[in-house]
Amino acid sequence: MKLSRIGEFGLIDRLERLVSHPDEQLVVGIGDDAAAVRTTPDRLLLLTADVLVERVHFDRRIHSFQQIGWRAMVANISDIAAMGGMPKHALISICLPGSMRVEEVEEIYGGLNAAAQEYGCAIIGGDTVTSPRDLVVSVALTGEVSEERLVTRGGARVGDLICVTGQLGGAQAGLAMLRLLESTGTSPLPEEQWVQARDRHLWPRPRLREAQEVVRSGRIGAMIDVSDGLAGEVGHIARRSGVGAEIWEEKIPIGPQTLRVAEQLGISVLELALCGGEDFELVFTIPTDGVRDVTEIVFRKTGTKISTVGKILPAGEGLVQVSSKGKKKTLVAEGFRHF
Amino acid sequence: MKLSRIGEFGLIDRLERLVSHPDEQLVVGIGDDAAAVRTTPDRLLLLTADVLVERVHFDRRIHSFQQIGWRAMVANISDIAAMGGMPKHALISICLPGSMRVEEVEEIYGGLNAAAQEYGCAIIGGDTVTSPRDLVVSVALTGEVSEERLVTRGGARVGDLICVTGQLGGAQAGLAMLRLLESTGTSPLPEEQWVQARDRHLWPRPRLREAQEVVRSGRIGAMIDVSDGLAGEVGHIARRSGVGAEIWEEKIPIGPQTLRVAEQLGISVLELALCGGEDFELVFTIPTDGVRDVTEIVFRKTGTKISTVGKILPAGEGLVQVSSKGKKKTLVAEGFRHF
Repeated sequence: MKLSRIGEFGLIDRLERLVSHPDEQLVVGIGDDAAAVRTTPDRLLLLTADVLVERVHFDRRIHSFQQIGWRAMVANISDIAAMGGMPKHALISICLPGSMRVEEVEEIYGGLNAAAQEYGCAIIGGDTVTSPRDLVVSVALTGEVSEERLVTRGGARVGDLICVTGQLGGAQAGLAMLRLLESTGTSPLPEEQWVQARDRHLWPRPRLREAQEVVRSGRIGAMIDVSDGLAGEVGHIARRSGVGAEIWEEKIPIGPQTLRVAEQLGISVLELALCGGEDFELVFTIPTDGVRDVTEIVFRKTGTKISTVGKILPAGEGLVQVSSKGKKKTLVAEGFRHF
Repeated sequence: MKLSRIGEFGLIDRLERLVSHPDEQLVVGIGDDAAAVRTTPDRLLLLTADVLVERVHFDRRIHSFQQIGWRAMVANISDIAAMGGMPKHALISICLPGSMRVEEVEEIYGGLNAAAQEYGCAIIGGDTVTSPRDLVVSVALTGEVSEERLVTRGGARVGDLICVTGQLGGAQAGLAMLRLLESTGTSPLPEEQWVQARDRHLWPRPRLREAQEVVRSGRIGAMIDVSDGLAGEVGHIARRSGVGAEIWEEKIPIGPQTLRVAEQLGISVLELALCGGEDFELVFTIPTDGVRDVTEIVFRKTGTKISTVGKILPAGEGLVQVSSKGKKKTLVAEGFRHF
């Protein structure tokens, strides 16, 4: 059977069945942002891994080596944040084409290390091998969380509201402009009008402090980070929680720079927000009466706005996208397609 | 500067300096078989990662998908064993060419999972992405060890003897025959005469139980697993321990099948043992009066023989290879060259 027939998440389901065994230490296994293992009676060890592959996740004509390193580390930190944890120690496995120079490798590690330092974790090992063609940066990151702070994709309850931090679609808008600039040498917008979107893509910032404030509230149901677009992430929460969900299009927070890029490039801003990858915002669910407190405290402590973008429904109602005029259609839960 | 100018270990040294920071939890950082982090007052969390890249570490014309998975997991288990620990939880990051079939991916995970089950650990997460060309299997594995059982590369003392488990060079001999068979379609030896060497390469078995017995003795100085050949591993121990070492050629344990393959192919059996990779035997150092007890107990509990192959010298004497006639030359500490 072809990989494209079952897709990334179909494949993960099959692999999950293949490798799962009883394990009394295991609290969360395959299928969440990170796995969680009980190490002491009250603390959990979080484990996550993300790999970036040249010509799939990055392009040397667009991304500097430092940006490649930063993005590889940040993708993992964001996963730990989404479980309610703090990142601790990272292993870097890197596959290096023989043509690469020592200084370039050091730039990658400079980016990895800058992100690690910024978010309070450290690189403590890994593997360094040669690659016949493509540069591959594989990061495994541990984190720590107390058991009562752990949040998974599986905790959403019917009636919970769906909230997101910050703004969506920006990273994808930035990438679209960078690609256009790379291929044509010109850009339809002056740089100052899309620089924010560009930096959202090149130097993403995981919402670690925001996640800590959100879980501290004690009210939160499910949480996930936005790596493949809002629609896909809400789909993951719905599936793991055994619920349905609706997303209100007009409530999706989109920055002015994303609107401007979308307009100039003639691409749908909704598609950028629903299916655009790597915003590294957080999506979480919370009972209606908990939204105001969380929104206030996160804004006061971090300056980041929280938007309420939808609601958890009974499983039978499926995944729904509601337009500003109240028109409903199926929310297509697909981000970047790996296969 | 070109990578080939400083080599894999020169690069690792530079990266180690770049990313190292004070970390009170960290007991062992970059530069050993695994990193070690203090999680509770008496227990350490071990972390290791190894990545296998197509056309560098394996060849689909020679290795089945199951064997690729098995070898990827075993390389990591061997690292945990060499620190005195027990393997616990693995993350698999896999980069899959679009042409691969679902069943083939499942075979890789079958091999990974079989090794995990055999040695008492479990796959609990990872990442699954597409790859433009080469298959890449990246494993990160945790382990556990009590602080008094932890062994590093840095504990060798002058006068210690150097011991190895089992036999060396077999995996490389097996690979040489497999390559010959693949390229010419014929083999100079009947299969039954090299099947042991072949299986040493295709289905390597890490020395987890042996390592546990060795560390239980409480006498051991340094330990490392043989992933790049005896000479390289002894070089790592010498460097991290700040000592020199001599290896006695005639004492190196080599199996009859390895001798036969070397003779038929006209390759040096010493080179196979000193520079051949992926035997996954253990090299450890121990005071002279501790050797007999350890040798006996390991053999009684596991059936694996221990050979004494050399001695730790003062740093000033460097790395020495002693022939059966007592002739000395510099031990060239180089395994597989990645750059």
